[in-house]
Amino acid sequence: MSNTIGKMFRVTTWGESHGPAMGAVVDGCPAGLDLSVEEIRRELSRDVPDRRIGTGRREENAAEILSGIFEGRTIGTPISILIPNGDAKSCRYEPLRQTPRPGHADYTWRVKYGHVDWRGGSRASGRECISRVAAGAIARKLLGLAGVSVGSRIVELAGMVVEDDKGLEAAVARAIELANLGESSGGRVRVVVSGLPAGLGEPVFGKLSAELGAALLGIGAVKSIDIGAGRGHAAMTGSESNDAILVEDGRLTFGSNTAGGVLGGISTGMDLVATISVKPTPSISLPQQSVDLSTGKPKTIEVKGRFDRNITPRVAVVAESMAALVLADHMIRSGFIHGSRLELSPLLYKK
Amino acid sequence: MSNTIGKMFRVTTWGESHGPAMGAVVDGCPAGLDLSVEEIRRELSRDVPDRRIGTGRREENAAEILSGIFEGRTIGTPISILIPNGDAKSCRYEPLRQTPRPGHADYTWRVKYGHVDWRGGSRASGRECISRVAAGAIARKLLGLAGVSVGSRIVELAGMVVEDDKGLEAAVARAIELANLGESSGGRVRVVVSGLPAGLGEPVFGKLSAELGAALLGIGAVKSIDIGAGRGHAAMTGSESNDAILVEDGRLTFGSNTAGGVLGGISTGMDLVATISVKPTPSISLPQQSVDLSTGKPKTIEVKGRFDRNITPRVAVVAESMAALVLADHMIRSGFIHGSRLELSPLLYKK
Amino acid sequence: MSNTIGKMFRVTTWGESHGPAMGAVVDGCPAGLDLSVEEIRRELSRDVPDRRIGTGRREENAAEILSGIFEGRTIGTPISILIPNGDAKSCRYEPLRQTPRPGHADYTWRVKYGHVDWRGGSRASGRECISRVAAGAIARKLLGLAGVSVGSRIVELAGMVVEDDKGLEAAVARAIELANLGESSGGRVRVVVSGLPAGLGEPVFGKLSAELGAALLGIGAVKSIDIGAGRGHAAMTGSESNDAILVEDGRLTFGSNTAGGVLGGISTGMDLVATISVKPTPSISLPQQSVDLSTGKPKTIEVKGRFDRNITPRVAVVAESMAALVLADHMIRSGFIHGSRLELSPLLYKK
Amino acid sequence: MSNTIGKMFRVTTWGESHGPAMGAVVDGCPAGLDLSVEEIRRELSRDVPDRRIGTGRREENAAEILSGIFEGRTIGTPISILIPNGDAKSCRYEPLRQTPRPGHADYTWRVKYGHVDWRGGSRASGRECISRVAAGAIARKLLGLAGVSVGSRIVELAGMVVEDDKGLEAAVARAIELANLGESSGGRVRVVVSGLPAGLGEPVFGKLSAELGAALLGIGAVKSIDIGAGRGHAAMTGSESNDAILVEDGRLTFGSNTAGGVLGGISTGMDLVATISVKPTPSISLPQQSVDLSTGKPKTIEVKGRFDRNITPRVAVVAESMAALVLADHMIRSGFIHGSRLELSPLLYKK
Repeated sequence: MSNTIGKMFRVTTWGESHGPAMGAVVDGCPAGLDLSVEEIRRELSRDVPDRRIGTGRREENAAEILSGIFEGRTIGTPISILIPNGDAKSCRYEPLRQTPRPGHADYTWRVKYGHVDWRGGSRASGRECISRVAAGAIARKLLGLAGVSVGSRIVELAGMVVEDDKGLEAAVARAIELANLGESSGGRVRVVVSGLPAGLGEPVFGKLSAELGAALLGIGAVKSIDIGAGRGHAAMTGSESNDAILVEDGRLTFGSNTAGGVLGGISTGMDLVATISVKPTPSISLPQQSVDLSTGKPKTIEVKGRFDRNITPRVAVVAESMAALVLADHMIRSGFIHGSRLELSPLLYKK
Repeated sequence: MSNTIGKMFRVTTWGESHGPAMGAVVDGCPAGLDLSVEEIRRELSRDVPDRRIGTGRREENAAEILSGIFEGRTIGTPISILIPNGDAKSCRYEPLRQTPRPGHADYTWRVKYGHVDWRGGSRASGRECISRVAAGAIARKLLGLAGVSVGSRIVELAGMVVEDDKGLEAAVARAIELANLGESSGGRVRVVVSGLPAGLGEPVFGKLSAELGAALLGIGAVKSIDIGAGRGHAAMTGSESNDAILVEDGRLTFGSNTAGGVLGGISTGMDLVATISVKPTPSISLPQQSVDLSTGKPKTIEVKGRFDRNITPRVAVVAESMAALVLADHMIRSGFIHGSRLELSPLLYKK
Repeated sequence: MSNTIGKMFRVTTWGESHGPAMGAVVDGCPAGLDLSVEEIRRELSRDVPDRRIGTGRREENAAEILSGIFEGRTIGTPISILIPNGDAKSCRYEPLRQTPRPGHADYTWRVKYGHVDWRGGSRASGRECISRVAAGAIARKLLGLAGVSVGSRIVELAGMVVEDDKGLEAAVARAIELANLGESSGGRVRVVVSGLPAGLGEPVFGKLSAELGAALLGIGAVKSIDIGAGRGHAAMTGSESNDAILVEDGRLTFGSNTAGGVLGGISTGMDLVATISVKPTPSISLPQQSVDLSTGKPKTIEVKGRFDRNITPRVAVVAESMAALVLADHMIRSGFIHGSRLELSPLLYKK
Repeated sequence: MSNTIGKMFRVTTWGESHGPAMGAVVDGCPAGLDLSVEEIRRELSRDVPDRRIGTGRREENAAEILSGIFEGRTIGTPISILIPNGDAKSCRYEPLRQTPRPGHADYTWRVKYGHVDWRGGSRASGRECISRVAAGAIARKLLGLAGVSVGSRIVELAGMVVEDDKGLEAAVARAIELANLGESSGGRVRVVVSGLPAGLGEPVFGKLSAELGAALLGIGAVKSIDIGAGRGHAAMTGSESNDAILVEDGRLTFGSNTAGGVLGGISTGMDLVATISVKPTPSISLPQQSVDLSTGKPKTIEVKGRFDRNITPRVAVVAESMAALVLADHMIRSGFIHGSRLELSPLLYKK
């Protein structure tokens, strides 16, 4: 298991979907940052799935902070966040105990660990991401001080390209339609980070694009990532792909951003743009072919109960959080935010 | 700088394109592996660019091994590889000393480090990858003992889809055509790893897909990665996306491989499939807009000399090497290959 | 902050002495290990200070396990342990808010972090070690399966050499005598690890002796470490220092163990022996010279309340725990215990 | 193998004593540092053993720098240093091929790696440290810019306490006397670092004392370390052990330095003081008891040839280097030296 991410701003997560709680330990947040548990809870409430294409399950996000804060400000010690799990019923998973669900991690976890918690995905559940979102709230707060913000939007849903609110409505309708057929659907999310200084990223193996890529590809259900124009680059010519370098108001800038804010793995100062694709949630109501591991014989399974039918909106929140974690880490590694105490960060205000 | 990759099988690379040499230090290769310098040189000779779309420049890949081998076999100590650089002429870069080339890392490196070697890309040059290929040769040798092999093929070139040799011919012709116009072009490469055991990868932040993603996105010019069906998942339904689980000859297998060999970040035992896109090399002969950093004024540049016009074939070799490095590391981390000595690896032969 | 230790068996600790709770996250324990919360509580009860030379304060070690266990066995996911803090009164620390206590970390933490929790040592308190002991309980359990055990004994206390129980009684009497004068005292503890296989340790920077040294020197109050004969080596000749290599019952062994179980940073198979010294607890009742940081003027302080007057017995427990953590990590790194699942640990039973 | 040390200022070493060369790769040195190969060679020439108690062997320290420098200054890329080995005769080791030398790492390396280079210690040889000294020269240069200097002195040699030059003379005479009897001897070295800012070190597992301890205990032959008064603390009372906190010229300082410059694992601003003991070199001329591994039978060995009889002076140089590496790393980690470029280090000049 590798449940820690980051070099200077480090996050460790723990918890299973049907265990007593989920949690995160954030180590390396500088002292002196105003932080209240409400800010974390607010971010977690974004993680509640969209009611129309999600489960309607009420998440009880009663997050608590157990360490690292004194008199309303961080003190440089690890910030431990605990989020109790509600009383999820696990009995519906009982029939799946010996039968891995297609598209889920049931089989690979069983092979790797032998003894597993077979109830509802356990640590491979989407529920695991709540720890990431909680930690991400702290990263976002820190980035905000430095003028860096992280946002996202859905650019494709249930097979339909989404360009505006109207397009999103149509795509949601399509996702609901599929859900009513017992099917699930996927989508694509674009994450955009604004306000970054140029100079973040550590060639040749700690490039910003590589670490952001790992963070986003490490989210369950994410199957691809494009940086800037991404795959589109493959069909361009050099003169289409190269962003012209300009001077504007005495400052260097670029005429376009096909690079997506990264050149040579280092931030250019333009928006950092990454687009990920989300596979359909594997939980569908239709019968599927699998194997009973106790007998070694084929077995048809039907997954019952209510499930998210499209987790793209939820993944968007997680993707923003992961981007925030990676960038907070790099802002500290590159000296734009001081690792121990905010007061000592002279670079913070003068990029 | 972060020039080391891997946790148990660790590779550190060094060297600038116009310095005296390039090198790699491979730490964590178990003792007892037969290894000769010829095997490394053979792999390096694959890195010579395709003469028709490349530079025709003769690389002098006179690699030497300076440590870690005794009587023809590894001894568990770091293997230091040194590859002398030929006498590259750097004078042609003189006019670019103060003017960053569009699409290159010139500007971001200047911002980050202040004092840089401005000759021909320095460490952001494609030449840097020769160290990775040298280290990759050792990883491949190790993987071979465990029955794991890494291959690749070009699936798109110069804007044309490539399905077979004939398609490749046509695409190369197109790339040459563009080169004659002073332009460059890109492509896409599919890396396939066969023979992997199920169980590689460490959730939730050391997933095989995430670490492979970082390794491939960390190659200069790579702008996207798809795992298995990748972006295609976004438009699928759950029943299209889920690979059925079957029994075949008493062994569990899958009816398809849209997952690309990874579920929940852990290998399934099916082929690991990743497709990357390669942007056009930024070196083109056409005039381009940039800025003279010494004056802060706009400046039009024309890059002279002979350059690779399409580096897709070269990136394919590097991508294979990076995949091999990640997998050798995971084979050791997961106990399939022993980290200290080959003789002690009982799991090696019974997956 | 660096609150994570270990490479494959990794422990992250969190919590301040006067915050709501302390905790540890153990990542990298293989699946399939029988583990109950009682085993952790039992180990924590060893951490209660000796009543005669300690505080008599009742620690409420109501540890809980929040993740990583299912049906009584580990599942390979992070094991999160939470230990609530009792209602410690912090008002007695109020006068010290601006005045660093000599011998404590008050001043250095203030310099480093700026904003600190000034109540009772916060994360520099001995209370922090309870997280280490909780994690250590898991490491010991794992080591036990492989036949490795960790013990310790006090070899010096309050300035008196301790050779047996009678000597310990006399030394405790001396420590109490000093405590009655308002003074504190120190001691020395010898940690012995038995049952280790030869071959643990990773030259040249991950030697067993170096990592054990860091783990033990990282315990608050520890100011020296000797491996085997340690400092005594300085006055020996080579023939006194070299342990003869013998054959006994067809197995290689050593005629003595001045090396303390490590040669070249790798375990020899003999007992691993490390002796640490513990400085007197800095909390004494006598007036001491310090500085009021708010005025910059000298200030004499007298620390009131009840404190441990000799923490040597308590440090002994922590030292055993740290040794166990380091060794569990190395047993996994060296392949003697499998990192993911116990069933796959072929080396475990046949060293 | 773990041949990399440091988090931000990272050093990887490679090379065997009887291979073609030794080397180090220094990754994370900021750009803009004036550095010439002569500075490294000068430091290496300090590593030549004292002729009277050493071997008299001429080391050919023709170090070269192969990367990371352009126009006399660092560029932020890895600095690769190569030091060719002279033509050491290895035939004298032939009789020891199957017989581990007592006190050496021959046996443990054989157990761990199976296939080893049996010639003269290979990577467990003192020769390995030349890579550390080369890297240390760069760390010292960097520290010098920040006003930090590292020195050492021998405080015990061949069983005699050394207080001044006269004492050293007498001790050297004793060491020579022992050498003439075929024996070797040890000693103790005190390393002192001056000019450090307060605030270096990362509790709870990255304390300055712990990482310095690991670095020094990781030197071959070092068997103990004392921080400040070290073991002496065990017999002190609290009022003896606590250093009074004073104001001097408006600045906070301490009345004494029994702490050795570290409180709670963080530097106090006083001199950092660590004393290590060096065991007698295991190479002696007297007959010793060992085992022939090919037959499993006892075998008496006599090590022929000329060897260092006391390596204390040599270890002193290595210890300084290791201290410099740890401190350069911490100066960067704590933001006193910028990790990418010297120009951006505003904290550097105002501690």
